[in-house]
Amino acid sequence: MKPYNLGIVGFGTVGQGIARLLATKQSQLQVNHGFSFRVVGIADPVKGMIYNPNGIPLQAALDAVTNGQRLEEADLGEPGWDSLKLIREGNLDILLEITPTNLRTGEPGITHLREALSQGIHVATTNKGPIALAYAELRDLAESRGAELRFEGTVLSGTPVFNLWRYGLACADIQEVQGIVNGTTNYILTRMAEGMDYEEALKEAQAKGYAETDPTADVEGLDALAKAVILGNVILGGQLRPEEVPTRGITDIQKADVEEALAQGQKWKLLVRVWREQGKVQAQVAPQKVDASHPLYGIDGVTNALTFYSDTLGTTTIVGPGAGSLETGHALLMDLLDIHRTLRQRGTR
Amino acid sequence: MKPYNLGIVGFGTVGQGIARLLATKQSQLQVNHGFSFRVVGIADPVKGMIYNPNGIPLQAALDAVTNGQRLEEADLGEPGWDSLKLIREGNLDILLEITPTNLRTGEPGITHLREALSQGIHVATTNKGPIALAYAELRDLAESRGAELRFEGTVLSGTPVFNLWRYGLACADIQEVQGIVNGTTNYILTRMAEGMDYEEALKEAQAKGYAETDPTADVEGLDALAKAVILGNVILGGQLRPEEVPTRGITDIQKADVEEALAQGQKWKLLVRVWREQGKVQAQVAPQKVDASHPLYGIDGVTNALTFYSDTLGTTTIVGPGAGSLETGHALLMDLLDIHRTLRQRGTR
Repeated sequence: MKPYNLGIVGFGTVGQGIARLLATKQSQLQVNHGFSFRVVGIADPVKGMIYNPNGIPLQAALDAVTNGQRLEEADLGEPGWDSLKLIREGNLDILLEITPTNLRTGEPGITHLREALSQGIHVATTNKGPIALAYAELRDLAESRGAELRFEGTVLSGTPVFNLWRYGLACADIQEVQGIVNGTTNYILTRMAEGMDYEEALKEAQAKGYAETDPTADVEGLDALAKAVILGNVILGGQLRPEEVPTRGITDIQKADVEEALAQGQKWKLLVRVWREQGKVQAQVAPQKVDASHPLYGIDGVTNALTFYSDTLGTTTIVGPGAGSLETGHALLMDLLDIHRTLRQRGTR
Repeated sequence: MKPYNLGIVGFGTVGQGIARLLATKQSQLQVNHGFSFRVVGIADPVKGMIYNPNGIPLQAALDAVTNGQRLEEADLGEPGWDSLKLIREGNLDILLEITPTNLRTGEPGITHLREALSQGIHVATTNKGPIALAYAELRDLAESRGAELRFEGTVLSGTPVFNLWRYGLACADIQEVQGIVNGTTNYILTRMAEGMDYEEALKEAQAKGYAETDPTADVEGLDALAKAVILGNVILGGQLRPEEVPTRGITDIQKADVEEALAQGQKWKLLVRVWREQGKVQAQVAPQKVDASHPLYGIDGVTNALTFYSDTLGTTTIVGPGAGSLETGHALLMDLLDIHRTLRQRGTR
């Protein structure tokens, strides 16, 4: 079978994670799933931009960036191919879009996705911006060009959410989804329940690499908001816009609040909720007190989890990592296999 | 598209559950998944045995058995079609095998499955016996005849296990699976942790319909054993036989043990474990003390859960119901859709 031409746009932690998985699992992908590929281009403003129609040797590319080289220096492909040139002229079958999330503009992700999908190039992305801000447009564009669009890694990294929903909960009528979708804030709240105050817990999270130097997007609930919008629009078919979703982060939670909750057998969690109400999809991001009967009560530390409420199964919860290089790379791998599977079902591959 | 001819063998709680789902979700299955069907036969020694090549009206069949009628009395099809006649002469595309589990002989399930698969009839089953006792034989038979064999409902009822693994964890190297796979024993242990003694908790479980009048299969760990063998053989590719798996139930757990564990911040759980050791797949069923850091610590009452340990995702846990009419019916529905999907990928449908 003809190998898929893959282009990787964004070669940071996650881009390197998927490259590592593609390199180590290449024969398994081929033998078990009939999925063969070559990575013809990698474009990252910091790590380098190269093109090689015969396939870039991934291990060599990984070694180069690990050694602090730019990809151009490693002589693994033709230099001078930025992301747009790669998408436009790289003869790609599938684009792996792994640039950083921007929740205000969605860029550069939206431009990359529009460009790819309008040419019929399939897309797997971990970038929350385009899916949170422009899902309906991108989905419709994809459909009109016969392109597949996947984004498993936008929520709970590689922990299956959209694949779980598509293949394990098909035909279930999902009334509500609740989740702990941000590891940073859950870590801070967990440490506060263990006796730290907010500032201490935040500092520890930063020291451990769980929180950014500027933690605003996490602690103000904006990262969770993006995921709420994605869940509501994709799983419940809503038309949510981020600015319309009531969003509160964890910065108001005091040590006294945490202690009071504990005394009542409760824990504070930053919960994302999406649900149907009077025919409309609603969403909310807010700290909530949950007791031991709540399916997300036991989710501590940086672990993430999502609970689906449905007619056939009642309550189903998936628990797993919410970040990480290999973990998010895993999401992209599942997306690639799902695109492949779908194309085979469509009879176009 | 030509509808699938379905045969339902076993029309107890779960058989009626899938019939109800097929009736209520028929148009959704058609529109969203391109899956159309008619149920041409239902065979159950107690509820009746009928055949109707034009499709049995499912709601009428459900109403009949709800009213205590045998299906033959309701005039919904030709009488006199037992399970083997239905499988041999019913022109089935897919058999739904939903007879009771027998963990010693696997019968009548094994005979039904052999008969169907050897004719190239696809099978979706919730019967643990055949999969625990004869998985390799049945899988090979299915492959040799181009038939698909699915059994999502054998572990955790409709809570996605095999679909989660196949579509959400593909290419992940799974080193170990641990689970709470028996609701009865987990309910009893939960109530004991709340202060009851074993006998009280068992009686309550029986009163609530969570435990059978003869609770042996549950409390001695035999139901969990069947699921351990299935998980080990399917997910880890082992060759486990039930009689070789060390199995201990919960009947030895005393109130004092539970209290001692609680004092140490631990809970007793009947844990199933399957893992690789020196190139061989091992399994074990035994009560274990787990502390709050264990992913299954918070799983209380009749809820079931399964944790996958893998190279790419670390720890991933799925939590949900482990029994129930609609819940297990949901598993069969997922199996039907997965068979349909696979046939489309194979280009045979």
